[in-house]
Amino acid sequence: MSIESLKTEVARQFGTPAVVIDLDVVERNIARVQALCNAAGVANRPHIKTHKSPMIATMQREAGARGITCQKIGEAEVMAEAGHDDILISYNILGEEKLHRLGRLMSQAKVTVAADNPVVVAGLPQATAVAGHDLDVVVECDTGRKRAGVETVAEAIALAKDIASRPGLSFAGFMLYPPEDAMAETQAFLDAATAGVRELGLDPRIVSSGGTPNLRNLGKVRAVTEHRAGTSVFNDRMMLAAGMAGLEDCALTVFATVVSRAGPERGILDSGSKTLTSDTGGLEGHGLIIEHPHAKIARFAEEHGFLELSACNDRPQIGDVVRIVPNHVCVVVNMVDRLITVRGDQIIGELPVAARGRLT
Amino acid sequence: MSIESLKTEVARQFGTPAVVIDLDVVERNIARVQALCNAAGVANRPHIKTHKSPMIATMQREAGARGITCQKIGEAEVMAEAGHDDILISYNILGEEKLHRLGRLMSQAKVTVAADNPVVVAGLPQATAVAGHDLDVVVECDTGRKRAGVETVAEAIALAKDIASRPGLSFAGFMLYPPEDAMAETQAFLDAATAGVRELGLDPRIVSSGGTPNLRNLGKVRAVTEHRAGTSVFNDRMMLAAGMAGLEDCALTVFATVVSRAGPERGILDSGSKTLTSDTGGLEGHGLIIEHPHAKIARFAEEHGFLELSACNDRPQIGDVVRIVPNHVCVVVNMVDRLITVRGDQIIGELPVAARGRLT
Repeated sequence: MSIESLKTEVARQFGTPAVVIDLDVVERNIARVQALCNAAGVANRPHIKTHKSPMIATMQREAGARGITCQKIGEAEVMAEAGHDDILISYNILGEEKLHRLGRLMSQAKVTVAADNPVVVAGLPQATAVAGHDLDVVVECDTGRKRAGVETVAEAIALAKDIASRPGLSFAGFMLYPPEDAMAETQAFLDAATAGVRELGLDPRIVSSGGTPNLRNLGKVRAVTEHRAGTSVFNDRMMLAAGMAGLEDCALTVFATVVSRAGPERGILDSGSKTLTSDTGGLEGHGLIIEHPHAKIARFAEEHGFLELSACNDRPQIGDVVRIVPNHVCVVVNMVDRLITVRGDQIIGELPVAARGRLT
Repeated sequence: MSIESLKTEVARQFGTPAVVIDLDVVERNIARVQALCNAAGVANRPHIKTHKSPMIATMQREAGARGITCQKIGEAEVMAEAGHDDILISYNILGEEKLHRLGRLMSQAKVTVAADNPVVVAGLPQATAVAGHDLDVVVECDTGRKRAGVETVAEAIALAKDIASRPGLSFAGFMLYPPEDAMAETQAFLDAATAGVRELGLDPRIVSSGGTPNLRNLGKVRAVTEHRAGTSVFNDRMMLAAGMAGLEDCALTVFATVVSRAGPERGILDSGSKTLTSDTGGLEGHGLIIEHPHAKIARFAEEHGFLELSACNDRPQIGDVVRIVPNHVCVVVNMVDRLITVRGDQIIGELPVAARGRLT
């Protein structure tokens, strides 16, 4: 089949919009990230938030990943149920309901959690009481991104001490998501925090860094022992813009149909914010149309993508099926219950997004 | 129970983030819209995209709605399966797969579809061939919003003629979503289009207008026979901003927990773009926190809502559960498999979002 035939066949079998992944590209992406980690001597612990699929997590483990990262207990539950046995939950876990579930999860898999404040640390022993064994906790540190994490070395050391003092909790190390231009600052933070906790007799066995763009920084922060990258398994328009991927590395595309051409400079896709989402990733326009790279997906309704075609010589016609690289791939995967799988121009089947919509 | 106890109990039973609707408010909203339609002598055909629930659609029908509106065949299939028998699909339906499903749907329910171009019209007889009976088609017209729809009276008349000439298709009227300040232009468009189709011996039995904000314009365009409002069943921060609802009319709130306080002016909610979505609706900030109206949900990661608290005197603490009115409620409902139902401060149960994620 050609790509044109593939588009026709996907539309005929599944209708559009259809969210499609090319398993050949997925495998290449997984191998590339693993090779980068191996070369840097850093363990690979991919973040499953991008694919939400136990099967793709298994592909990552089989390629050499040490374990996986989940953001929510609900995601970890799906992964543990499928046999994944080494899970970092990179999130502050808080509240009776979640702590009880965390305790049960600890009976199924080796679980490490992150914390960035004493309120979260104070709650975690509730989970160890349910599990009946100890829990590894890493201190989340913020070295400039202004997201989650303690912002000072003193807080990091104090939180490590707090963790070590709690029944059933074990201080395991540090977790961060450093800004891409802050390797030196991150090294300095980690050096000071490590020295501080060693004075208390504690050992940061794990130092976890994160982010697909930071794959190019692997090895630059010496203390890092493992890395969490998510997006690299599929890539997206943000990664194209960041120079982290070429078009041939974008494993996921949304197949959409042109359903209207309101005027010579306008068109409408059957794919709006309910498929591509309104996450811009800081980019102009809402996705790259591979067949019409000069067309701009200017704005969305839920089921409509409104095209501006003024910069396009070759303009799409009503009924055309096009392929879109979304700005932010992780959130697109979360919109659908299944991904259509292909290899090149051959349809393979469907893959459930088993951990979709696990909010808690 | 008090609202504080309700928050504690929702967090304990379901965890946060939890998407909660108050059925008392839903019932009031449904009654209010029906009363507005009745007063204007316009039939009510609510758009189910907001709730995606056959049960709430039934509440709307029992309150007096003539039928329902769906955006996608997949939504209509769920509604028809639950017994809804009068459905307008307000969308260009294109492609073999969808036309076959449309034909099957026509055997289950009375279906009307919209079209804004001849390519779509040319395909629709495929559906009637499957169904074995005729299909009512309305011409979608654009009177200024620059979304879907023909933009000129001449195109509207030509498309009506095209529809009437096709085997199995019946021209049923016009559908529009007029800009709120374009009632006179809309009236003029409809008058001219109606005169034009009457000259062809055609009768626009249906003239469907749309939008919750246009509820205040009901009756101003004389030709309108029925109205499609979606958001009014729940309301949201956009409707607050538009003066279409007060806080007491917002039936849906997202219960979220404060999981971090990175600094005195910053905080983090366990609810990000995977729950509240990045649809801004043109507003500053990503939702109204009822307990802290001066807190700004400044930006999102998928599972993090980043708070700016500089304008807040009374600042949330880690572990606090807060209630958020989202900017755009329809897209929030689409993120979850179930809504938690309450009446006032009493938990009632759970309601499946049965038509969630129906992209096609």
